[in-house]
Amino acid sequence: MNDVIKLLQSHRSIRKFVEEPLADEVVDEIVRCGQAAATSSNVQAVTVIRVRNAEVRARIAEVAGGQRHIETCGAFLVWCADLRRPGLGCEIGGSTMTTGMTEQFIIATVDVALAAQNAVIAAESLGLGICYIGAVRNDPQTVSDLLELPSQVYPVFGLCIGEPAQDPEVKPRLPLGTVLMEETYHDDGQREGIAAYDETMRAYYRSRTGGTKESTWTEEMARLLEGERRPHMKGFLADRGFEMR
Amino acid sequence: MNDVIKLLQSHRSIRKFVEEPLADEVVDEIVRCGQAAATSSNVQAVTVIRVRNAEVRARIAEVAGGQRHIETCGAFLVWCADLRRPGLGCEIGGSTMTTGMTEQFIIATVDVALAAQNAVIAAESLGLGICYIGAVRNDPQTVSDLLELPSQVYPVFGLCIGEPAQDPEVKPRLPLGTVLMEETYHDDGQREGIAAYDETMRAYYRSRTGGTKESTWTEEMARLLEGERRPHMKGFLADRGFEMR
Repeated sequence: MNDVIKLLQSHRSIRKFVEEPLADEVVDEIVRCGQAAATSSNVQAVTVIRVRNAEVRARIAEVAGGQRHIETCGAFLVWCADLRRPGLGCEIGGSTMTTGMTEQFIIATVDVALAAQNAVIAAESLGLGICYIGAVRNDPQTVSDLLELPSQVYPVFGLCIGEPAQDPEVKPRLPLGTVLMEETYHDDGQREGIAAYDETMRAYYRSRTGGTKESTWTEEMARLLEGERRPHMKGFLADRGFEMR
Repeated sequence: MNDVIKLLQSHRSIRKFVEEPLADEVVDEIVRCGQAAATSSNVQAVTVIRVRNAEVRARIAEVAGGQRHIETCGAFLVWCADLRRPGLGCEIGGSTMTTGMTEQFIIATVDVALAAQNAVIAAESLGLGICYIGAVRNDPQTVSDLLELPSQVYPVFGLCIGEPAQDPEVKPRLPLGTVLMEETYHDDGQREGIAAYDETMRAYYRSRTGGTKESTWTEEMARLLEGERRPHMKGFLADRGFEMR
């Protein structure tokens, strides 16, 4: 186990930050690391928007269910899937991009996630903490309006980066044997792996909350997954040119 | 710039590998690093299938347009978006998962990409090379059949990992100023940034091919993006339970 592997395995989300803006050079280096990630056929379907304006950050924090770290972190970045730039490249190259395909949506979304995760590792290697903000998708239209996103661009998630002002535990994951399979998908051992993880998570929640939170992974999943999650996404994406054909 | 940042910025895809299987402990550690990545509400919607069987690898290589490194790399992993396991968790927790939402598709796809990129960094920190195989989506039904994937699971990409048997250049990326924006999305400088990158890529292709490939980024985008990309994806995903509601 080398230092990079130790770094990767020590990740935890940070939700309390020292309230000091990150230097531009630091953000530049972090985003450059994001750009270095693999990208499908070199489309580089990624745009990163750094939001400094306090009012805009407050509005996004509100959209995200009151996550105040969006306002206080050293740099708040919105990672956007961007097919507009590849489309412009296509046009300059003398052709026209076909739009609205499901596959393009996957390519752009995966490109963003790979780049962002590289940026996260870069930030954490510098001793900074991060928190992904999937909740920009609670109201992606408002976020898109605030950031003046054009067609063919959508906000996949936000990312808080900054000097940590807390030191939370690493959250345990499912047993490796539950997620890593050999040759084919199979359900052998799934229930046993999940049962073991439930006990691990019960202890984790107790420890994290000083005994006040009693829950398990399966209880969390039961609460989280029964309703229709963000049912506006289909219509929102179609409006932005991601018709999912 | 620290060693991790240097590592991140030195990534290049490897397509020629020393033909020797990776030790199980190494693959375990790499996948464990994948698990340590952030995951939306802890759903951990990821399953990794290691394919060792030579015939299956040959079939997948064929699907992927004859990428022989799928057969020769030290470990070939298929990264699957998996809502089946969270759904099982939900059921054990006493509830039923709503399926087919676009948002769930995004959550699972992003979860997979974040985890895989962590695994990639772990592998590269060990001196191994990697190549993502998005082309498993050329014929995702065949890949799903080979891996016996159940409903609510789809193969996002493959990943070749192994000891590199080549030492290619790092592929240049778009200028940082083209992808990192302040406050709002804007087109200022996009054409200039792309023009500069076209010249960088022209030099890169010449250097990589000993002068035989004459191309630019915009020429590549024009070729790549004009047709309907993988038009089967919508129907395939709907069949697997990802209806994109």
